[in-house]
Amino acid sequence: MFLSVVDRTARTQCLLTGDRPVLAGVSGGADSLALMHSLHRLGFRLVIAHLDHGLRPESTEDAAFVRQKADDLGLPFVGARVDVRAVAEREKLSLEEAARQVRYDFLFAQARRAGAQAVAVAHHADDQVETVLMHFLRGAALSGLSGMSHRRIMPIWDAEIPLVRPLLDLWREDIDAYIRDIGWTPRTDSTNSDTAYFRNHLRHELIPELEEINPRFRDGVLRMADVLGEEDRFLEQLADQAWSACFSGEAEGWVALSRPAFLALEKALQRRVFRRAVGRLRPDLRDIGFDAVERGLAFAAEPSASGQMDLAARLSLTALGERLVVKTWSAELPEDGLPLLLAEEFEGLLMPGNSISLSNGWSLALEETDLEGSGNVQDLPPHEAWMDAETVSLPLTVRGMRPGERWQPLGLAGHSQKLSDFFINEKLPQHLRSRWPLVCSGEQIAWVVGLRPAEPFKVTASTLRILQLQIFRDLQSE
Amino acid sequence: MFLSVVDRTARTQCLLTGDRPVLAGVSGGADSLALMHSLHRLGFRLVIAHLDHGLRPESTEDAAFVRQKADDLGLPFVGARVDVRAVAEREKLSLEEAARQVRYDFLFAQARRAGAQAVAVAHHADDQVETVLMHFLRGAALSGLSGMSHRRIMPIWDAEIPLVRPLLDLWREDIDAYIRDIGWTPRTDSTNSDTAYFRNHLRHELIPELEEINPRFRDGVLRMADVLGEEDRFLEQLADQAWSACFSGEAEGWVALSRPAFLALEKALQRRVFRRAVGRLRPDLRDIGFDAVERGLAFAAEPSASGQMDLAARLSLTALGERLVVKTWSAELPEDGLPLLLAEEFEGLLMPGNSISLSNGWSLALEETDLEGSGNVQDLPPHEAWMDAETVSLPLTVRGMRPGERWQPLGLAGHSQKLSDFFINEKLPQHLRSRWPLVCSGEQIAWVVGLRPAEPFKVTASTLRILQLQIFRDLQSE
Repeated sequence: MFLSVVDRTARTQCLLTGDRPVLAGVSGGADSLALMHSLHRLGFRLVIAHLDHGLRPESTEDAAFVRQKADDLGLPFVGARVDVRAVAEREKLSLEEAARQVRYDFLFAQARRAGAQAVAVAHHADDQVETVLMHFLRGAALSGLSGMSHRRIMPIWDAEIPLVRPLLDLWREDIDAYIRDIGWTPRTDSTNSDTAYFRNHLRHELIPELEEINPRFRDGVLRMADVLGEEDRFLEQLADQAWSACFSGEAEGWVALSRPAFLALEKALQRRVFRRAVGRLRPDLRDIGFDAVERGLAFAAEPSASGQMDLAARLSLTALGERLVVKTWSAELPEDGLPLLLAEEFEGLLMPGNSISLSNGWSLALEETDLEGSGNVQDLPPHEAWMDAETVSLPLTVRGMRPGERWQPLGLAGHSQKLSDFFINEKLPQHLRSRWPLVCSGEQIAWVVGLRPAEPFKVTASTLRILQLQIFRDLQSE
Repeated sequence: MFLSVVDRTARTQCLLTGDRPVLAGVSGGADSLALMHSLHRLGFRLVIAHLDHGLRPESTEDAAFVRQKADDLGLPFVGARVDVRAVAEREKLSLEEAARQVRYDFLFAQARRAGAQAVAVAHHADDQVETVLMHFLRGAALSGLSGMSHRRIMPIWDAEIPLVRPLLDLWREDIDAYIRDIGWTPRTDSTNSDTAYFRNHLRHELIPELEEINPRFRDGVLRMADVLGEEDRFLEQLADQAWSACFSGEAEGWVALSRPAFLALEKALQRRVFRRAVGRLRPDLRDIGFDAVERGLAFAAEPSASGQMDLAARLSLTALGERLVVKTWSAELPEDGLPLLLAEEFEGLLMPGNSISLSNGWSLALEETDLEGSGNVQDLPPHEAWMDAETVSLPLTVRGMRPGERWQPLGLAGHSQKLSDFFINEKLPQHLRSRWPLVCSGEQIAWVVGLRPAEPFKVTASTLRILQLQIFRDLQSE
């Protein structure tokens, strides 16, 4: 019975085959001994791996014990000893977290060396129930309530070798009975970490109490985890597609999403896509929290006036034109390849025949032409502007905005407008405004580059000579 | 604070508007009094409804109390008294289940009469936590862990009027404080049903204990329910599409799904579609259970030799050609509009120029023709068969199969085959075999109708006269 369940789980859930070795992590406790013994008996090719964490006086004996058991079964053994306490101090991790990291690093490194098809660990059904219950008590999301998987690729450890759990469908009592049957005496783990203490409380106090309420509680949770896991995986697949539809670039410190694509998603997928964006920037963060996600979704639907909000974990969210940018506090916002001044304090002079360099490979050039063959003034593309040469004083100045500056956009005859109001109407993101290039004649703005020329310099029926402003991009320079 | 939360929830989650009345179910307890008072104060138009279940001595006073409170606020009141105990006995329901049914029937009937936009009930955040916890203890699926909705159409009560829960984001302590503030003294419900007892245990024992483990437990569960609810609704939408892709007919006692379409679904959607099929036949069944669903999915992927399995709740599952049929034990399997004998024991004689009636509007006819203009024998459609008239003895017999009967299908010269093996090869569902029409010459099968003619009677180069068998459907007769 025990062996047939292990066999079925190993083959149909963990997808293990008999041809390539499986690296089994064995501590020497009942669970991992049962894993090693049963997989071996079922004909799987095993490599036994044991990491001595050096945290307990008897850990050297544990290592020798596991090596002996591997020898008894004629199985290859790999072992190592790591000073986990030192790692924890160096990496500023809890002892438990450090032990976990060091152990899995070791197991996957050995699996790669052995050409193993998978790393097998001995988590069982009671571990699963305890894990799901812990997540429930925390108010976790679907993935937490799904517990551990039978088989899963964990990219932080290896892109191809999966972690598998062949005992996940078996209860602790089945494992203990199996170990008694084969006459082995497991080592007992005397570790008393916080989690172990907490787990013990669940195991010996809370779960028995919940079983008084529902005698089939453990069974119910185990099945629930299975069903929810399937739904979670399915939603993750849909989130993959949603991510592809939304993703709009990333670099050091920021990830951008297309806001229209994001808003077109179901809320359930918005949450998952948003959490992924956060995950790209904070891969070690377990959970950014429900509140931060909800605030992010609300902002995406309706950005605040400042166009920016603080999230959590030293991340912020910005609405940048059609894009939503999640970024670390310290990162610069993406410039979107725009033609900005090379610095806020930049100021340059422009004569006909000359050009000035802008950011992202753009240049700004001035030419003098006459009216012949010049086409319709109304149809000018945004990267071009014409002025009546008689109205401007040369050289033109190229600079950024000044506090409280006003101007007279084309079409607004007789009135002036605050440049900052114009930028707001044009939905130009705040952080770009100070570096937005303005072409001026004397003190007067003649062209807000790429957005609108000014009324006073416009070409009219009486214009004789035209000054032509243009930005263009030299793609070589990028 | 209290009012602003109710207002926001009522408008953004329950989608209530100020223009049409809301029918509020009010028992006289603190929760429903707070619902009534706050919605009224927020300017919603209310109709107050109270059902006297007649289960407790003081229930008449409760009714009078609620009517008085409605009068005090100048609100219309509707009340009724139902003998719930009698309903429970008549309908064989628990008192609690009967009370619930009678109450919601009453509320929705009154809502229709009042032209109400919704029926509002007073479930709050603690009710939500208790509901989710109860489902968790049972090992429920995603919908159970999502708890109650702010707004939901319940087709069993009304196809258009939703049930809404404007207090779902507020804790019991907030509600009690509000009731103290307005100086009202609620009626206390002395009912001690099993569920109430169980809820009291959760409320006063288990939840406080879980809050010792995680002080933010209730908050976590409330948020979890919200996120899971969104994911559940999204999966239900996908299940709607999956259902449309799979649904392949239904009638009294059975529902059919396209097996290829079903197998093309993700397992998570297979489970939901399968549960829906069960729900069509057993609408009152809360849950057919994890095991039955898993066995059903396994059978769909690989039907057993018998082509049939028992599910649960007196339902069975049959693989019928390309279809999966979920049916009640007592229902007949669908005949798929096939040309079957009208009864298993039917036996009829067929002369040229005559025809015999089959099931579903089909007829079987025999004609004598000569070879001219008769086309290619190989190209005959399956509803037609030709015989060399010299080889058969008239009249032909039309009957069902006999135990152990053998025949010689066209193409199998010199050999005979068991008819039952032929049926298996042709994947003819078991239950159709005894009524499948066979056309015989003497004791020998000449045509297994619609499937294959027999070798001994085939048309050859020396054939002079042909007997033409044909089935055709008179669509008028359906």
